[in-house]
Amino acid sequence: MDISKIGKIALLDHLNDRFDIVQNSTLRAFDDAAVINSANGTKQICSEIFLEGIHFNLVYTPLQHLGYKVVTHAVSNIVAMNSQPRQILVSTAVSSRFQVADIELLYDGIRSACSIYGLELLDNNLTASLTGMTVGITCIGEAKEADLCYRGGAGVNDLICLSGSLGAAYVGLQVLERERYVFEQNPQAQPQLEGYNYVLGKQLHPQARTDMTAIFAEQDVKPSAMTDIVDCLASDLLQICKQSSVGARIYLDRIPVASETVAACREMNIDPVTAALNGGDDFELLFTVPLAKYEQVKNLAGFEVIGHVTDAAQGAYLVTPEGGEIKITAQGWSDV
Amino acid sequence: MDISKIGKIALLDHLNDRFDIVQNSTLRAFDDAAVINSANGTKQICSEIFLEGIHFNLVYTPLQHLGYKVVTHAVSNIVAMNSQPRQILVSTAVSSRFQVADIELLYDGIRSACSIYGLELLDNNLTASLTGMTVGITCIGEAKEADLCYRGGAGVNDLICLSGSLGAAYVGLQVLERERYVFEQNPQAQPQLEGYNYVLGKQLHPQARTDMTAIFAEQDVKPSAMTDIVDCLASDLLQICKQSSVGARIYLDRIPVASETVAACREMNIDPVTAALNGGDDFELLFTVPLAKYEQVKNLAGFEVIGHVTDAAQGAYLVTPEGGEIKITAQGWSDV
Repeated sequence: MDISKIGKIALLDHLNDRFDIVQNSTLRAFDDAAVINSANGTKQICSEIFLEGIHFNLVYTPLQHLGYKVVTHAVSNIVAMNSQPRQILVSTAVSSRFQVADIELLYDGIRSACSIYGLELLDNNLTASLTGMTVGITCIGEAKEADLCYRGGAGVNDLICLSGSLGAAYVGLQVLERERYVFEQNPQAQPQLEGYNYVLGKQLHPQARTDMTAIFAEQDVKPSAMTDIVDCLASDLLQICKQSSVGARIYLDRIPVASETVAACREMNIDPVTAALNGGDDFELLFTVPLAKYEQVKNLAGFEVIGHVTDAAQGAYLVTPEGGEIKITAQGWSDV
Repeated sequence: MDISKIGKIALLDHLNDRFDIVQNSTLRAFDDAAVINSANGTKQICSEIFLEGIHFNLVYTPLQHLGYKVVTHAVSNIVAMNSQPRQILVSTAVSSRFQVADIELLYDGIRSACSIYGLELLDNNLTASLTGMTVGITCIGEAKEADLCYRGGAGVNDLICLSGSLGAAYVGLQVLERERYVFEQNPQAQPQLEGYNYVLGKQLHPQARTDMTAIFAEQDVKPSAMTDIVDCLASDLLQICKQSSVGARIYLDRIPVASETVAACREMNIDPVTAALNGGDDFELLFTVPLAKYEQVKNLAGFEVIGHVTDAAQGAYLVTPEGGEIKITAQGWSDV
């Protein structure tokens, strides 16, 4: 059977069924990051690989930005557990078309991310590649057990919140793709990137929401469930619904889209709603908090309330301003 | 500058110089695995990526064997710290030429390794690839701090030991490469693999030396330095010399080569010494123990004494049976 027929999430479930997955007091597997408990706290660990041509295109991604962004990606997984990232391990595979100076740029970006996020580099491997660049990042975080947020903790009537606006990274990518196309047609053309600073910044230099852990602590609001928006809002919301055994109603007119994103969408003839729902790479957090916290959080930055949790039997729906309900479905083979 | 001009190890050193590498009481970086201390013990973490065409060839590597072997590789790094492997995280990238059944076979191999080594699967990611298969493995081990062995602890006059014989995996690979060549010339030809069970087994189904931790404990012999032979004896010995600031003398006629490996070498017109010195993937341990332990270990399986540690000023040399000394030099761009 073709992998595209079964889809990524179903195939992962199928493969994982073949293992005895452990979920006990010292281990918790298969969330944004895995959790290992020890006497004086918990460690969170996540590991991902990023491939040229799939996760990044070096035609318009400067290597420094790439190095920074793959670390941001891993850090975001740790943050999505309400944990603080502490260390990374890096493995890089490069083909012979790369020079030493290229690898230096990549590692300048990795170093910049380490500095911004306060990470220590614990290991660094280099290997050859036949076909381009691949980067593997493992990130380790640290949190008290009581602070950890899993995907599986959402309760009926909880508020569904976003830490910030969506769609900018997707629109930034469309701008870059447009300029790549123009460049391929006419290598003399200069890229037209003026006016797109906001969306390009969100695509090339996104920020993992490491600030949210402190905000949750200050407000004394611990999310009942949390994940980061990496694939897209629809598929990440379904992960929370599935692992919490709940349904959801989210409201289209509540989904925050930055004015810069809307403006860029207009110029690019992209529907801002499509960008916000289906775009990835925004690295915002999607989380649920108890309904009782509504008055406290409703005007706080970082708590954009977009809907509420329902019974599993009611499914997951997007409600339009006119009151129409659109069933939220999982993508098939989706990628970062 | 071309990467091949500077070489892998020098390039890694150059890149790592750009980071503030932490080596303190709670962290230790850049060994076979990184070490994180906590109140009740230490965790070891290593992370590696394996690329089709570089680390494995699917023409003659069954996917089950591949899944098993990449886990063995990561486990061997943990064992080289004198630590017990406990958990793994897996990331797999596959192109559209792979079917669901192929991925199942890969994961059957991973599951088999988990069962043999007593590992728990903590996370599992799938992603797309344009150009083949890439597998990333992160392995976590557990050890008491006092039991850990680093590459940097070898002292002058220590014995240099191997846990077993070398060269078999390399010769097994040559047999497979020969048959691949025959097959490419004549797709009707049946592979001639009879008589090569031992070397093929060492190549396709090698065993990480998880048994050695118990042997060291039973014998009350803690290696002063240790690493696993993954690249080749020469380059892994140089890693110990460099990180311990010592030199070494190893004796050619002491390097253990299994009789099956010698026989296969004869048939294949390969010099057994070349296979033992330059072949990789044997997953044996290279370690040093104090000279005072010589009487105790000299007849023990798992303690093949091949030489001794010298002053750094004396360099690293291979001594031939005739008394000639050959300087051991690092390979340039070497790969697993």
